[in-house]
Amino acid sequence: MRFSHKVELCDLSPMRKFHPYAVAAQQRGKTIYHLNIGQPDVATPPAFFEAIRAFEQPVLAYAPSPGIPELIEAIRGYYARLGVGFNSDEILVTAGGSEALAITMQCILDDGDEILIPEPFYPNYNTMVRTCGASIHPVPTAPEKGYHYAVRGQIEAEINEHTRALLITNPGNPTGTVLTREEMRMLADLCKERGIFLVADEAYREFVYGGEPLRSFAEFGDLDEHLIVIDTVSKRFSACGARVGCLLSRNREFLGHAMKYCQSRLSVATLDQVAAANLYTVGAEYFAAVREEYKKRRDTVVRCLQAMPGVRCECPGGAFYLMAALPVEDADAFQTWLLEEFDDRGDTVMFAPGEPFYATPGKGKNEIRIAYVLEQQKLERAMELLALGIEAYHGRGKV
Amino acid sequence: MRFSHKVELCDLSPMRKFHPYAVAAQQRGKTIYHLNIGQPDVATPPAFFEAIRAFEQPVLAYAPSPGIPELIEAIRGYYARLGVGFNSDEILVTAGGSEALAITMQCILDDGDEILIPEPFYPNYNTMVRTCGASIHPVPTAPEKGYHYAVRGQIEAEINEHTRALLITNPGNPTGTVLTREEMRMLADLCKERGIFLVADEAYREFVYGGEPLRSFAEFGDLDEHLIVIDTVSKRFSACGARVGCLLSRNREFLGHAMKYCQSRLSVATLDQVAAANLYTVGAEYFAAVREEYKKRRDTVVRCLQAMPGVRCECPGGAFYLMAALPVEDADAFQTWLLEEFDDRGDTVMFAPGEPFYATPGKGKNEIRIAYVLEQQKLERAMELLALGIEAYHGRGKV
Repeated sequence: MRFSHKVELCDLSPMRKFHPYAVAAQQRGKTIYHLNIGQPDVATPPAFFEAIRAFEQPVLAYAPSPGIPELIEAIRGYYARLGVGFNSDEILVTAGGSEALAITMQCILDDGDEILIPEPFYPNYNTMVRTCGASIHPVPTAPEKGYHYAVRGQIEAEINEHTRALLITNPGNPTGTVLTREEMRMLADLCKERGIFLVADEAYREFVYGGEPLRSFAEFGDLDEHLIVIDTVSKRFSACGARVGCLLSRNREFLGHAMKYCQSRLSVATLDQVAAANLYTVGAEYFAAVREEYKKRRDTVVRCLQAMPGVRCECPGGAFYLMAALPVEDADAFQTWLLEEFDDRGDTVMFAPGEPFYATPGKGKNEIRIAYVLEQQKLERAMELLALGIEAYHGRGKV
Repeated sequence: MRFSHKVELCDLSPMRKFHPYAVAAQQRGKTIYHLNIGQPDVATPPAFFEAIRAFEQPVLAYAPSPGIPELIEAIRGYYARLGVGFNSDEILVTAGGSEALAITMQCILDDGDEILIPEPFYPNYNTMVRTCGASIHPVPTAPEKGYHYAVRGQIEAEINEHTRALLITNPGNPTGTVLTREEMRMLADLCKERGIFLVADEAYREFVYGGEPLRSFAEFGDLDEHLIVIDTVSKRFSACGARVGCLLSRNREFLGHAMKYCQSRLSVATLDQVAAANLYTVGAEYFAAVREEYKKRRDTVVRCLQAMPGVRCECPGGAFYLMAALPVEDADAFQTWLLEEFDDRGDTVMFAPGEPFYATPGKGKNEIRIAYVLEQQKLERAMELLALGIEAYHGRGKV
């Protein structure tokens, strides 16, 4: 049977190949410290579960396609508190940030089109873009420059007649890079001047550790026609399993097109929307505590990495990820070896090898992404395992 | 700003245009009897809400991309009780039947491809197919033949070199047509022989009123490579708002491709999956009662329609929809008039005009789809309003 050439171009998750090794390691009694997945360990606020338990309608009916009014109003209020004005009809609730991204790509990308994305980037963007018959055009960065990409000339050099959009993940996954307001303004100007969309994936907005105010590209009112913001409750409220996100835009034509997709999938899960609306009642003290915790973790990871000989890692400003270059040739082979051959008192560690975060062939081969989603003590142990692993990997065969 | 030519080809919901008229009618104090939407009024089994209230994990984490094992096992068990064997890894949980359909189309349809669908059909198929750069090739039917489409020669005449699949909704939406086992076998043979996929949307499986056993195309084990089954808890358990469905196939290559999309959107809502798994503990007596209720409603609607002069309507065997041809030229204009000009003691009625259910231009103009999702008494009143409406519509301007 024949399949779409577009799905043939897509890949299964690059982490999948480590699954059998991880299972085998666990079966041999090894404990694995997981730094490879972006699933926070922070408790979901009780407000979520309280709203679900209080739901008393006898029929679990479809929600309206653009989302339930209570949730849209809650999101509108959240942005208003950030100083950003959105009308209710400029917000479409989606099944997580993932669906907001998929809908956006399907609206703005056509066969042969390109979307600019600074690399390394979130690998799931690949499937979303390829499904549209389009491709990702990477904006190159370098670990030795802290993955800095907000340089006008550098981005402009990559724009061509196929470029339809610039996608910015801010704060960044996998790099943790956080833009300054001046850099955001520059990127906004660039997109306006070149007549391309700015897709702002702001899923990690709350996770900034420099004491700066929370930012959105939506602050720039003059960007109205060009801006699409991707948002989600997943990381903000540690509610990844709710699958509730949204897209926001002031471009009426875009909203009309996006609505076609919202209608074709009928609605987002009703109870999760009701509960997500209640999450927005959570106060600033919740975020302050979460931010403090992640900041400590980031500091621990960076301190440990920078103490490892040959490891290169800058201190990132946000999200809960960072990229590091290791003194190994192939992080993929090193990860397999850590699962297969290595242990320290029965423990080993998993990270995400860097290559799948790049579009440029061969780049990121010696890099890894670390998600610091473990509590302090486990994180310290995981970093110790990484250091011991690198040492043993270099000494292997030399006995 | 430029948009994808594929989204430009898609449409907003055809029912949208009646929304302002309906709102205005309600503001003038009219009561509207809704026969236009497929939202059942039957209570969702308490098993759903019980499972949700019993959920005690502190972190609402991502579920596995193919679905939680408990739900996959529940679905496997349900099919086993139908006498249909599926392995656990032949089931992928999706965000409703809608996502199962969208993923399927994206896997099997390429630019320029065609999918055969007997018309009238569920209008949301349009967006799903057009997004892939493909098109729907309708298999024509006629109201005077009860929308019967399972005629080998008739379908075969529509197959060409672009045909990739035949999509069958059984029981049918909007027609309520139910295939016999012989007709199913014939369609299965046809797809096998012509080397095309058979996409079986069996969302309404439980809703058959002739006392026949519940059927799935998956009964035909020789169809393994060609078959993709679309399923959902939405109608089965009156849990439309859960957004939990699945796709089932024994084609390993298809499953591998579909998994790419499952991974790119991470997971389906966790709590809804937990609750949906519990729905599968609901016993046969639940379905017997629901079936009995819908059968009564169908009989009421058909009896009333057949008593209306000039209305043509066959008695359908399943689902909770039927199509009827009205003695009006344009069902669209008639619907607008019903909302704007007509009332009987302050009441009026809404149905879905038939044209959007067709791909062939001009077809279905005098037809309507009725969803009999109201309780008996309201349904009788709705049918009375339709009859009075037709009468008054014919007499308008003759005073």
